[in-house]
Formats: sequence, C-alpha cells, structure tokens
Amino acid sequence: MAMQERAIRTRNALIKAAAELFDQDGPASASLATISARAGVSNGALHFHFPNKAALLDAVVVAAEGRLRWITRPREVRAVQLLIDASHELVQGLGRDVVLRAGFRLSGQGEGSGSAPDLWRAWQKWVEDTLTRAGKEGSLLTDESPHEVAAVVVAMAAGLEALGESDAGWLERSVLARFWALVLPRVVGAAARHHFVPSGRGDR
Amino acid sequence: MAMQERAIRTRNALIKAAAELFDQDGPASASLATISARAGVSNGALHFHFPNKAALLDAVVVAAEGRLRWITRPREVRAVQLLIDASHELVQGLGRDVVLRAGFRLSGQGEGSGSAPDLWRAWQKWVEDTLTRAGKEGSLLTDESPHEVAAVVVAMAAGLEALGESDAGWLERSVLARFWALVLPRVVGAAARHHFVPSGRGDR
Repeated sequence: MAMQERAIRTRNALIKAAAELFDQDGPASASLATISARAGVSNGALHFHFPNKAALLDAVVVAAEGRLRWITRPREVRAVQLLIDASHELVQGLGRDVVLRAGFRLSGQGEGSGSAPDLWRAWQKWVEDTLTRAGKEGSLLTDESPHEVAAVVVAMAAGLEALGESDAGWLERSVLARFWALVLPRVVGAAARHHFVPSGRGDR
Repeated sequence: MAMQERAIRTRNALIKAAAELFDQDGPASASLATISARAGVSNGALHFHFPNKAALLDAVVVAAEGRLRWITRPREVRAVQLLIDASHELVQGLGRDVVLRAGFRLSGQGEGSGSAPDLWRAWQKWVEDTLTRAGKEGSLLTDESPHEVAAVVVAMAAGLEALGESDAGWLERSVLARFWALVLPRVVGAAARHHFVPSGRGDR
C-alpha cells in the first residue's frame, strides 16, 4: 500500500516536472533526463512509469483532461451561469495550473502518441452541450445556435490563454467578464440578463 | 539599380524562408543554414543581410508590422465598420500569410533582439483608437469603454489564430462574423446595428 502510494506520488511528480519543462521550453527541447532530474527521481523510475517521451506527453494531456472534467462538473445552477462559471475557472486554471496549461498546449499539436484527447475540442463539446441545455431551460434566445455561440466562447478562452502567455493581465477575471457582459444580452435576451453574473459566482 | 533590386529580392526571400521555418518548427529549431538553403541563397548572402538569427527574427516581425499597417490603413468608412473589416483581414491574413503569422507569433516571445515591435500590442492600440473614433462619431453606446471592448476584440482574434493552428476552420469568416453579430448590438446599440456588416464589407 505504501509502495503504491509512493508510485502514484512519483508518477505525479514526473507529470508535473514534464508539464513545467514543456511549458518553459516546448515539448521538443525537454529531455527525459532533465524531466527525471527535475522530478527528483531516477531515470529508471521514469522508464518504469513511462516507456518513452510520447507516453509522458500523453500523460500530461490526460492529467489536464481530469482537471477539465472537474471544471465542467455538474452543479446546481442554470446552464448559462454554469457555462460562465466554468469558463472563468478554465481561464484562471490555464493561468496558474501548469499541468492544465501544458495539457491544452500539447493536445492537438500531435506531439504525443496521437491517442491523447484533444482538450480544446472536449471543451467545445461541453460548451455546446451546456448551451443546448440552456435552450431547453428556456434561457437562450431562439435565433442563437448553440454551435455558433460555442465557437465564439471557445475562441475567447483560447485567445486569453494565448495572450496570457506573455502578459498575465489577459487572464484576469475582468476581461472574460467583459466578454460575457457584451455577449449575454444577445444570447439570453436583455430581459433575462439580470439572472446571470458575467464575472462568475465563484468563491475563488 | 539592378543590383539593388536583386538585394531586395534576396532579403525578402530570406524573410519568407525564415518565416516558413519558424512557423513549421518554431524559431529555436530553424538554423541559419536551413534558412539560406530554403531561400536558395548562399550563407554569405544571408550574413550580408542579417548578422545573426536575432536580426532575422526581428526582420520577420518588422515585415509583419508592415502588413499590419496595410490591414489597418485609413479608409473612407465609419470607424466601427473599419474595425470589423480590419479584424477580418487580420484573421484571414494570419491564416494564409506566413510572414504575418510568424511575425505575430514571434513578437512578444522575446526571441529576437528585443527591439522588434509587439504586434498584438500594436493591434490592440489601433483597435482602441478606432473605438475611440467610433465614440466621437456617435456610434458607441456611452457605457462602453473603448479600452474594455478592445481587449475583447483582441482576445477574439488571438483565439482564432491559436485554434487555427491545428484546425483552419477557425479562420473562416463565419466565426468572427458570429462574434461581431453577438457583440455589435451591445457596442453600437440595437438601433444602429443595421448600419454595420458583421461579416465585413471586404471583396476578398
């Protein structure tokens, strides 16, 4: 049992070290030796967990997928507010959680084995599903298609992430809140707008 | 005169080859030898134009800045429509013009000498100035600040560029047109909305 716990801790340390190095220098520059050194484990231990670099890249994306699943967890709240809250959590998370950020950057770049999930696509699917739910709840203006609105929401989060790479000011809650304040009256109708908080209801 | 023309052509070929290789593999991986080979010029000719790689990186950004200046050229049209049109030209350009795309990616990454312009910041400044002009023309709703609206417009373009890297569908006119259709009624007021074309008035 203690052995297993230690193995899990080692595995997580390797994933975190890999994410940090991919984040700093890009996946091509980071060597397995640097990653194991940074994680404070032997090269042998690294190879026990990950046969090669592609497997480690995949593991970072899968770990980030777990975090995305937490961000998009079901909550007792109307679909539109859930979407707003989750978008804030995602953008904040991309700023301060290196595994989440590295996972999003790696996924879709085709650097791993090719079997890791595409996280931007997973996020887009969830946004679309949530907007469809909002429609069923009667919150959406009828002329708005969940698919088209979702594309705009996804592009906004991706843009904040990309710009946040060189200037963290873009990841502040205020920019995304501004986006929601601009878009909400068209998506849910001016009358329903007061139901929703563009800056999110998070306690964070 | 013929000499000078040839020198300009060589210089442009080097900038284009550098942009293509930076775009493909990132600036760190591209060597000066690969760049000169791709441009079809000798290593000596490369060094005649660019003393080192940082100078070549800077030259790509400066070339992209020239294209951005063309995209944001003054035109006989209301400020809001000018902004819409230029945003479409930028996103289309980022999709198909490798020098523009590489310039935007390089600028702000601090890869060159550090003296090249930050193109996202230049774009942001122009968007802000254009929104301020829209306010003077009476097109803007009075509760909207040019600074805050500009941030949302800039993040949207950056997001389409980032997502377009792995899926060109994001760079299609329709996604940005959707964004403008969602945002315009809040920025210019529902009544003025019919003055403006969210998909741009471009002939392209």
